[in-house]
Amino acid sequence: QGTRDHPPAHTALRDRLLAAVVTCFKRHGAAAIDTPVLELRETLMGKYGEQAKLIYELQDQGGELLALRYDLTVPFARYLAMNKITNMKRYHIAKVYRRDNPATTRGRYREFYQCDFDIAGQFDPMIPDAECLKIVHEILSDLQLGDFLIKVNDRRILNGVFAICGIPESKFISTCSTIDKLDKMPWEEVRSEMVGEKGLSPEAADRIGEYVQLHGGLDLIEQLLQDPKLSQNKLAKEGLGDMKLLFEYLTLFGIAGKISFDLSLARGLDYYTGVIFEAVLLQQENNHVEELVSVGSVAGGGRYDGLVGMFDPKGRKVPCVGVSIGIERIFSILEQRVKASGEKVRTTETQVLVATPHKHLLAARLKLISELWDAGIKAEMLYKKDPKLLKQLQYCEDTRIPLAAIVGEQELTDGVVKLRDVATREEVRM
Amino acid sequence: QGTRDHPPAHTALRDRLLAAVVTCFKRHGAAAIDTPVLELRETLMGKYGEQAKLIYELQDQGGELLALRYDLTVPFARYLAMNKITNMKRYHIAKVYRRDNPATTRGRYREFYQCDFDIAGQFDPMIPDAECLKIVHEILSDLQLGDFLIKVNDRRILNGVFAICGIPESKFISTCSTIDKLDKMPWEEVRSEMVGEKGLSPEAADRIGEYVQLHGGLDLIEQLLQDPKLSQNKLAKEGLGDMKLLFEYLTLFGIAGKISFDLSLARGLDYYTGVIFEAVLLQQENNHVEELVSVGSVAGGGRYDGLVGMFDPKGRKVPCVGVSIGIERIFSILEQRVKASGEKVRTTETQVLVATPHKHLLAARLKLISELWDAGIKAEMLYKKDPKLLKQLQYCEDTRIPLAAIVGEQELTDGVVKLRDVATREEVRM
Repeated sequence: QGTRDHPPAHTALRDRLLAAVVTCFKRHGAAAIDTPVLELRETLMGKYGEQAKLIYELQDQGGELLALRYDLTVPFARYLAMNKITNMKRYHIAKVYRRDNPATTRGRYREFYQCDFDIAGQFDPMIPDAECLKIVHEILSDLQLGDFLIKVNDRRILNGVFAICGIPESKFISTCSTIDKLDKMPWEEVRSEMVGEKGLSPEAADRIGEYVQLHGGLDLIEQLLQDPKLSQNKLAKEGLGDMKLLFEYLTLFGIAGKISFDLSLARGLDYYTGVIFEAVLLQQENNHVEELVSVGSVAGGGRYDGLVGMFDPKGRKVPCVGVSIGIERIFSILEQRVKASGEKVRTTETQVLVATPHKHLLAARLKLISELWDAGIKAEMLYKKDPKLLKQLQYCEDTRIPLAAIVGEQELTDGVVKLRDVATREEVRM
Repeated sequence: QGTRDHPPAHTALRDRLLAAVVTCFKRHGAAAIDTPVLELRETLMGKYGEQAKLIYELQDQGGELLALRYDLTVPFARYLAMNKITNMKRYHIAKVYRRDNPATTRGRYREFYQCDFDIAGQFDPMIPDAECLKIVHEILSDLQLGDFLIKVNDRRILNGVFAICGIPESKFISTCSTIDKLDKMPWEEVRSEMVGEKGLSPEAADRIGEYVQLHGGLDLIEQLLQDPKLSQNKLAKEGLGDMKLLFEYLTLFGIAGKISFDLSLARGLDYYTGVIFEAVLLQQENNHVEELVSVGSVAGGGRYDGLVGMFDPKGRKVPCVGVSIGIERIFSILEQRVKASGEKVRTTETQVLVATPHKHLLAARLKLISELWDAGIKAEMLYKKDPKLLKQLQYCEDTRIPLAAIVGEQELTDGVVKLRDVATREEVRM
């Protein structure tokens, strides 16, 4: 349930998409790593908040207690800690597993690819963070997915907001996961979850509501830096200062126009400690040119300065920031686009079919195709002793092999082959 | 236990190796598919004989009973049956899982890659089978792994041998798994397992011994075709006839010299029904030039005409033949070779480091690097506001970035950059 086979047309399109993502990651100097699909259960525990119930656990078959990885971030942090690496720029493209209610029509599966880029190390503030946003901008632009917006916020600012609204610190994380639903629910519902399920006072919820509905750019940052209460909160002030710096760098990168400082962005996971962000695609609603609405998140990430320390015996921290590209949703969009365009994705790369015009020429075909393979040419033949020429040419058309190399008795005698352009039917002897 | 992280140098080398394998598979016109790591437990049951105990099972967390795939062949057969595909040439490169006793020093892990190429469909005998052997030959030659030998046999011939030696049919498969140990144990031990554990009579075991110690080429096929008992067995006769045809095709492919018809080859898995094969690397033992000994299997496969039918509600069969490249063992060999040569595998592809010679130039670096990225150039910079030039050049040397693009006040004023060749220290302004 919630998984799928990828037939050749899927796989070919997905490989094309992944290649574009890898190209971008390599352009930014990242090295690839790989980690096992299996992790110790204890490695995953306490990292995903309310989502931990979605972790796939393996049966205890007499050995360790194992689980399937839930994302690529926690394995990366474990990898850094285990190997005492304090400095690394890596990408990792692999499948992760979540026992979620699958919504396969909307591209949500229990097994899906993640494409992660992360920068680990102690650096000057916001330089790696800005690069992560640049990467999102490059990938979404390269893939021509249409208009998009990258929302940014900072957990420190949110925590500051919670603090000045009178929320006890113990409820910060669970309040975050409620706020995170603001992109799918109206404020009224989020408010009632806060008050009902999370036990906040109605007044506190209303005060939060005033903040989390704000979004904007540098102006908003300046405005909040002047906010008499928020500016008194140490964490919020730090976060706002860094947000200002981030916008400065994004302006130098020429991408500030696509970035929105959005206080409703909270992100679900426990481990974020600083900047968080999420990219959404925008679409015109009901042909109102002016009104662009979000049609779902296609990338997300943020800073998690405490995660590596959780795996280090001495708790040594390695600050990290990273981004995960939502390749499955992007794939669904590209797939629909390919379908709409009527384009048929070619699933093989065969250049030439080795064919014979009449019977008793299998040996000639086998010899010729072997020569072609040895010369590095992508070649196929039908697996029949005596196939009809028409069938062979039909196979070329069906699988879009552009050329047929035909050997008959005459060609054998003359020591040549007849090379036929399948589309134009032109032939040359060579 | 038995799994490992792949650091950048591993991953870079492995990606290089996988690219070579994919190139070969594509040269033979295969399309790629992908299937989930998770399969229903019932899909895997009854396919792996005695090895089934090595299957990783997932905990029943309220849903289906799942397991991790054990190989890529059974998922492929399930895929064909589910989608009613009767004709397909596909490759699949992915991880599989076996709860084996790990022998990590010998490159045996519980999570490892398989690289499979399979041809499904009803075709004339031995044409696709011969292509699978050609593929093994091409890959082992392309990778320059040294001398190798491809052993071939046929389950029908083995079954014929068992029948004429008086083994009951119910013991054919378990006798196969004992014979399969002949590459690791002397005949005496295999014989005693047959008699002791498998309950064959000593006379039957001895009769089998006379056959399974035979190996050779066309001569041996001819000799067995004349064998008064074996030639009377219908299955064996079919198998021998096909083996003769196979050698004919392999001769046309020019690779018969590396093929040995070897009656001791049995393969462990239940599902094989016809031709089986295994490639081994050969090495000189103790500098005896004449004596080449096997140093382990690097590819294997065979024909499994009944497997797809096991997944079809009406039992419709789709004949299949395929090969699996033992990428992990090949990787270990290449890794040792790289180590021995002192070559340092570069793990990133960065072309240029954007650097500044003095303070207060972060903005200039950010602008320049952004231009380079947008132009598709692989560029990095240090994530510090004011790094020392020496540190920046040192980073180029450490990570083998060939060029540094340097912007100082003078360059900014003149609207140029200084491009420095890190190795030669030559500089040009541009």
